Amino acid sequence: MRMVDLIIKKRDGYELTEEEIKYIIHGYINNEIPDYQISAFLMSVFFKGMTEREQLSFTMEMLNSGERVDLSKINGVTCDKHSTGGVGDKTSLVVIPLASACGVKMAKMSGRGLGHTGGTLDKLESIPGFKIEMDPDEFFNQINDIGLAIIGQTANIAPADKLLYSLRDVTGTIESIPLIASSIMSKKIASGADTIVLDVKVGEGAFMKNLESAEKLAKAMVKIGNLAGRKTVATLTDMNEPLGCAVGNSVEIIEAIETLKGRGPKDFSFLCMSFVKEILMITGMAKDENDAEIQANDALNSGRGLEQLRKMIEHQHGDPRVIDNYELLNTSKDVVDIKYNGLKSYIKNLHALKIGEAAMLLGAGRETKEDKVDLGVGIVLRKKVGDIVNNGDVIATLYTNHKNIDRAIQMVNDAFEYSINEVPEINKILEIVR
Amino acid sequence: MRMVDLIIKKRDGYELTEEEIKYIIHGYINNEIPDYQISAFLMSVFFKGMTEREQLSFTMEMLNSGERVDLSKINGVTCDKHSTGGVGDKTSLVVIPLASACGVKMAKMSGRGLGHTGGTLDKLESIPGFKIEMDPDEFFNQINDIGLAIIGQTANIAPADKLLYSLRDVTGTIESIPLIASSIMSKKIASGADTIVLDVKVGEGAFMKNLESAEKLAKAMVKIGNLAGRKTVATLTDMNEPLGCAVGNSVEIIEAIETLKGRGPKDFSFLCMSFVKEILMITGMAKDENDAEIQANDALNSGRGLEQLRKMIEHQHGDPRVIDNYELLNTSKDVVDIKYNGLKSYIKNLHALKIGEAAMLLGAGRETKEDKVDLGVGIVLRKKVGDIVNNGDVIATLYTNHKNIDRAIQMVNDAFEYSINEVPEINKILEIVR
Repeated sequence: MRMVDLIIKKRDGYELTEEEIKYIIHGYINNEIPDYQISAFLMSVFFKGMTEREQLSFTMEMLNSGERVDLSKINGVTCDKHSTGGVGDKTSLVVIPLASACGVKMAKMSGRGLGHTGGTLDKLESIPGFKIEMDPDEFFNQINDIGLAIIGQTANIAPADKLLYSLRDVTGTIESIPLIASSIMSKKIASGADTIVLDVKVGEGAFMKNLESAEKLAKAMVKIGNLAGRKTVATLTDMNEPLGCAVGNSVEIIEAIETLKGRGPKDFSFLCMSFVKEILMITGMAKDENDAEIQANDALNSGRGLEQLRKMIEHQHGDPRVIDNYELLNTSKDVVDIKYNGLKSYIKNLHALKIGEAAMLLGAGRETKEDKVDLGVGIVLRKKVGDIVNNGDVIATLYTNHKNIDRAIQMVNDAFEYSINEVPEINKILEIVR
Repeated sequence: MRMVDLIIKKRDGYELTEEEIKYIIHGYINNEIPDYQISAFLMSVFFKGMTEREQLSFTMEMLNSGERVDLSKINGVTCDKHSTGGVGDKTSLVVIPLASACGVKMAKMSGRGLGHTGGTLDKLESIPGFKIEMDPDEFFNQINDIGLAIIGQTANIAPADKLLYSLRDVTGTIESIPLIASSIMSKKIASGADTIVLDVKVGEGAFMKNLESAEKLAKAMVKIGNLAGRKTVATLTDMNEPLGCAVGNSVEIIEAIETLKGRGPKDFSFLCMSFVKEILMITGMAKDENDAEIQANDALNSGRGLEQLRKMIEHQHGDPRVIDNYELLNTSKDVVDIKYNGLKSYIKNLHALKIGEAAMLLGAGRETKEDKVDLGVGIVLRKKVGDIVNNGDVIATLYTNHKNIDRAIQMVNDAFEYSINEVPEINKILEIVR
């Protein structure tokens, strides 16, 4: 087998066999196939795509390049939830406690944030003392004991994916749906959960800019997951405006806790409940959608979801008192309100990307892996799409430590667009792909 | 400027600026841009093509990466002839003497053959003593003295093209028309001739398999040449059956001499005369097609073309007596006739690729650059498409040195296809792109 022939085969639109895909991934990780052939191959995939069989082979070979997490020591049905990333996306912080309150074993290995979309681990670290590192036995024990854990990736998972991603990043081959799908799913399948619940964000603040491509990605991932023997469901959710109101780290923890207390923003609360229901259905914990709804509401209203979060914080060495006293979280020095100046209007657009960039300017995210995140800073939106604003209303509050304040204020103001006509709220759930 | 952004720009179908193309070529030859980014870029070009402006910039940057040959020391209009390569293609050996006999200064730098299509230099070397190396002043002087020279490439021409070609060869990016056009034209323009006459072969024995892609390539090259200030014309010629009858080295020299003596195969003679006419017209040596025809015929019929070949052989230290005594050429040990066995038929197809491969088997060509060519071996076809064959007729003669004879005979037999119905001859000239 010669790599150049496989490049040409893919370039000319033919399906590669499992053996050929194995040859490519093995050859690459063993330094037998050079970067310049892999990058030409990846560009061919960008243009020609991959069949379902190719995607499954590609995913499984990347997965097989590293360790698999064996969750068999966990009693009960395990579930992993993954989001493709968006602005203000603290969904896991609410969904995982609620689903675990209903009896699902929620085993989540999470990543750091990069760019304008924050990472769950960074958010959790704004809770003083919270540890995101744990050895596998501790992880299994915690989940058996309390039903949930969110930790950093410990095992050497899908190293081929890591290598390929670095190459894709510098060769213009990131934006390929089969490559994105295989990359995500190789890691999710390796992480070992029985069921996988995916949140595919769609819109200007997300990686997938339009519904069509997001739908393709969701379908590809669900197919790969199911073919690999993991029940998988994906929800396409809007990311044109930020999710909820808080964008940052501490501020998002507060919003997550408030949501578990039943006081969360309407759009965010609704989205979380939808994911909890999906998890209950896919794991078989609920017998139908109605049952799932009753269980999810009960977990929220009874306060058992909030208790699950408290237990997780305790088990992971964080200070559980933050749940009742937000001042114990990492906080910012200053608070700046941004006001609306004009005639009574409706919020027409609230550009997620600009809000994400404003939060980055304040220091809430990282541009490169080495950047340190300022956990106390962030933005809380006081108005969202569809809301009425009158002259002098506060539209957003910035939590700052004096970094780039002027530019951040400008960016937030740019994010808001107004209309004199009534504007409907944005429906956050666009489609569920099962 | 970042290379990844330029890859994405091309990938998404936007036109690169001259400055951006300069950045790519310079960065590559200076080792500032790695192979893996260039190969991803080349694959994007494969899929997205290049505009005329991009092709010109790309060509000029490759050209500027090396030396240019300055032909200003040559008195008169200079012309270079180039073929994309085919089986039995000894056109230069006839066209260059004839055109020079009409007063055009024919300055040809040629390459070695690779694969089933032979190189002009190898063919010339089957003349004992013939030297294809010459320093620039000798080259200019010879052309001023006698009007023609065919030598190996001496200057460091378009090193960027050499580098890129090696990369394309292993990354599945050879078959891109803008890349092929830029590659050929960067070398032709650097070679310095005022006018360029191109022979684009089309068919199974050629690099371009169909008329559509050959036409695109021809148009691209003519456009680049003209935009670069060189009058350029391209002729699309058939390469489904071999050109003429002889395929090899010595055997092709003999056929070229016979053609200059007015006894060449009909298809080959006709093709050569067409090229001579094109050269006379493009250089302005003929005032119209009719004048070109008269001059070309006169050069042939008067024997002045043959004399030009004799002078070139003499000047380049070859033995000019070969013109009258073919036994002085490198010859083979054995001669094997292949006979037709069957009912009276017509030759329907004579697959050039198979004949080229049979000649390779005998040792007439090289698979890798390091292979040594056996100058004496080859094939002479006794029948061509459209000819009648009766039982026992010789269809081809093999000149062999006992290498792979059985396989070569089999291959030649496989090359012939017969029909009981009359078959027209193949018209060798398909189209002229000016």
